[in-house]
Amino acid sequence: MTAQLGDLASLVAGQLSGDSTIPISGAAVLAQAKAGEITLADSDPFLSQLGNTSASAAIVPRDAQTDALPCIAVENVHNAFATIVEHFRPRRKQGLAGVSPAATVDPSVNVQADVTIHPGATVGAGVSLGARCEIHSGAAIMAGTQLGEDVIVFPNAVLYEDTVVGSRVLIHASAVIGAFGFGYQIENGKHQRSPQLGFVQLGDDVEVGAGTTIDRGTYGPTVIGEGTKIDNQVMIGHNCQIGRHNIICSQVGVAGSASTGDYVILAGQAGVRDHVTLGDRVRVGAKSGVMNDVPADTTMIGSPAMKEREFFYQAVHQRRLPNMHKQLKSIQRFIDEMESS
Amino acid sequence: MTAQLGDLASLVAGQLSGDSTIPISGAAVLAQAKAGEITLADSDPFLSQLGNTSASAAIVPRDAQTDALPCIAVENVHNAFATIVEHFRPRRKQGLAGVSPAATVDPSVNVQADVTIHPGATVGAGVSLGARCEIHSGAAIMAGTQLGEDVIVFPNAVLYEDTVVGSRVLIHASAVIGAFGFGYQIENGKHQRSPQLGFVQLGDDVEVGAGTTIDRGTYGPTVIGEGTKIDNQVMIGHNCQIGRHNIICSQVGVAGSASTGDYVILAGQAGVRDHVTLGDRVRVGAKSGVMNDVPADTTMIGSPAMKEREFFYQAVHQRRLPNMHKQLKSIQRFIDEMESS
Amino acid sequence: MTAQLGDLASLVAGQLSGDSTIPISGAAVLAQAKAGEITLADSDPFLSQLGNTSASAAIVPRDAQTDALPCIAVENVHNAFATIVEHFRPRRKQGLAGVSPAATVDPSVNVQADVTIHPGATVGAGVSLGARCEIHSGAAIMAGTQLGEDVIVFPNAVLYEDTVVGSRVLIHASAVIGAFGFGYQIENGKHQRSPQLGFVQLGDDVEVGAGTTIDRGTYGPTVIGEGTKIDNQVMIGHNCQIGRHNIICSQVGVAGSASTGDYVILAGQAGVRDHVTLGDRVRVGAKSGVMNDVPADTTMIGSPAMKEREFFYQAVHQRRLPNMHKQLKSIQRFIDEMESS
Repeated sequence: MTAQLGDLASLVAGQLSGDSTIPISGAAVLAQAKAGEITLADSDPFLSQLGNTSASAAIVPRDAQTDALPCIAVENVHNAFATIVEHFRPRRKQGLAGVSPAATVDPSVNVQADVTIHPGATVGAGVSLGARCEIHSGAAIMAGTQLGEDVIVFPNAVLYEDTVVGSRVLIHASAVIGAFGFGYQIENGKHQRSPQLGFVQLGDDVEVGAGTTIDRGTYGPTVIGEGTKIDNQVMIGHNCQIGRHNIICSQVGVAGSASTGDYVILAGQAGVRDHVTLGDRVRVGAKSGVMNDVPADTTMIGSPAMKEREFFYQAVHQRRLPNMHKQLKSIQRFIDEMESS
Repeated sequence: MTAQLGDLASLVAGQLSGDSTIPISGAAVLAQAKAGEITLADSDPFLSQLGNTSASAAIVPRDAQTDALPCIAVENVHNAFATIVEHFRPRRKQGLAGVSPAATVDPSVNVQADVTIHPGATVGAGVSLGARCEIHSGAAIMAGTQLGEDVIVFPNAVLYEDTVVGSRVLIHASAVIGAFGFGYQIENGKHQRSPQLGFVQLGDDVEVGAGTTIDRGTYGPTVIGEGTKIDNQVMIGHNCQIGRHNIICSQVGVAGSASTGDYVILAGQAGVRDHVTLGDRVRVGAKSGVMNDVPADTTMIGSPAMKEREFFYQAVHQRRLPNMHKQLKSIQRFIDEMESS
Repeated sequence: MTAQLGDLASLVAGQLSGDSTIPISGAAVLAQAKAGEITLADSDPFLSQLGNTSASAAIVPRDAQTDALPCIAVENVHNAFATIVEHFRPRRKQGLAGVSPAATVDPSVNVQADVTIHPGATVGAGVSLGARCEIHSGAAIMAGTQLGEDVIVFPNAVLYEDTVVGSRVLIHASAVIGAFGFGYQIENGKHQRSPQLGFVQLGDDVEVGAGTTIDRGTYGPTVIGEGTKIDNQVMIGHNCQIGRHNIICSQVGVAGSASTGDYVILAGQAGVRDHVTLGDRVRVGAKSGVMNDVPADTTMIGSPAMKEREFFYQAVHQRRLPNMHKQLKSIQRFIDEMESS
């Protein structure tokens, strides 16, 4: 599928500079674009690379100054480029909505309009599926779970019993919502499991990454607040109360009964100790380990985590250590000489 | 479903103080309890919060001194509260035991009494399932695997060929038992896979968290000892020999051929190097990285991990560093003056 | 199944020293071998343990000097031992190739010769499966995905739309290839998802561990180079360009748009920051966190990661800190006395 550059400019309502008849056969980012393809440059560092690309044209911001190659100038570079990528690689047409005969759906399930259930999915007793929900193959929606509208559950994700899910929630493949919490009391030398009577509650617009696990509460809900986005392979322990609009990056672990305010950011591989409370807009650096409560608007780094300023203060002194050692030796020599004289 | 407080007191054989006719509509923990609900307070810090809760009643220990609100005093607060939670949110009745026609079960499978196999599960050739085992939807029990009695395999967990599982074992959703070990030799610039002839053996009463992976041994078994509890997203490498009654928290990684004694505790996100041996009752702190063998009854912290005492000793000196730097500067100034005079 | 030692020697074309009629009933590694079993010792530390084993015989290297027990000397100890293990525990015969009627395969799927699709697998529209591919139960191969020859997809792995897979690729259970990247822009206080128009491309001979997740690119491919081996529970972010013949150990996280050269090694639980570039043959230590670009042939350790030499240099000074503190106190005392006198 080839297009002329002028047609692409029209498609994105952009300002063309260059030959409108140039044939364009695909779209790719700068590092990968080949001759005949269109690329994008959204800011100066990338604009300055346009002279070296093999691409035949570029999408650039309206105010960009470049004559390295034919360009389409637009208000929002990423929106325009996405439109062009979709032109060359059109989104797959969704099959008709409906419940596959190869899915296993309990007769008691409450299915709203335009729900899609793919082959191999299982939906348990008393489940409720809001309008336009899509349950992919192999996903298991266990008994009593409630889904809002426009929820997508990708293949092989598992929602244990009585999970409560808001609207417009995405749950990626192999995520597990509502498994047992990790709590034991030792009795006669054996670990006895604590009660597992709670469930998980996901607010509206929550997204849960592939392979992420969120454990059920002991007696009540583990809560993920509305608008919070969770990356792949994150672990949220039992009874956690995660606030709204958090960003929780890949491989983060939040231990049981911890809680976060709104707009908290946890960077990759960070950990939060059990029962710790993080205030609104707290930011935790990658690989950091938070051991104590953190007040709002604080950035924490390190393991154990400390305030950003303190972390860098310590790091500076750390680097001075070898010089301090040398200086100390020379002073000692001086003093030894004084004493012996 | 509403109950009177007196009825709940009878249900848990507790000592009521307060009006027995108070209507109670639900049960929730202190942080979430609303008016009309009963909550729990198992120790002083929580007892002292009873004055501020909206809850209408509380379960408290027998010796608790509180008149903040109507109470039911019991020997074991958690057991009593669990009973009341189950009263308000009764456990779902399990469907009839049996093998679903929508499961794929090899004709050679040995199925003992009261086994349940849910729709979409697959059970391979030569598998043996002990009495009262439950295999949830989408779980794959591959050929030759042997399960003891009362084993529960949750949805979409995978047991590779020839896994050996004891009795009363729980395997949570998306756990993977028996995938290939990560061992390669380089030949002609390419990584060649080492033999993958072993399997995984889980002792009685082992619990395996959601998304956890335990790799098969090279020639023989990777072993998880009886009573050991493993949280979500833990990685146990090939040939590991994990002892009995260990507690292995979320996101821990134990590299190939490592071994642990009994009652070992590995806190969240800790790592153990390959071929390392940990003695009985060793405790490893969160995010710590153990690089060498550790004798019994030792607590290790840090990365690389050191003995707890040493870790805190170093941490103290670390915090002194900025002051040491100042002191060193002032001494240097003094000496410089001495020398110049 | 019992064999005579002489028969095992013939089986592996080895040189027997000892009684050829000894009955051998199994094969196990040194730490686990019991009387009547044969074990292996591939190097001196293990050869010296042969005196203490209960095993009845051992496979040893050709030049080994040992008379502790009957031995079979061979050129390649591991190849010979693997042959003997397979003699005692023969590899399960694979069922006939073919597409199970209990699998869900779109009529548009292009199936080459000798493809096996197990019950409960789902294969979407436009998928292409090369010769001898095997798709295990519960695996989901979503629309448009292309597999080369001899690819094995283990149970419950998920390949999202348009994944491109080379030949001889292994994808272990519950791995997820092609889920959405974790990219958001904030608009009106809500996180808006960036475009998810790309896909994942796995080169020939790539192996992907259980529970590993590799996210799709924003506009184009996230690439894993040929021959690269990825362990369990690894996270590769969107747009990453991973080189050829890398070794990526368990629980490593590589953030979005990072890239690696060839023969890079990332040890367990390491992390690589987004947009960072690692040169050929870079090695990153366990639990290390790489924050900046790294030139070829460099070993990085620590978090934040530094060059190996620098890391050990700092570690040495770290250990000197308590002594430095003592020395500083004694110097201060000396100076205080001088000043007061």
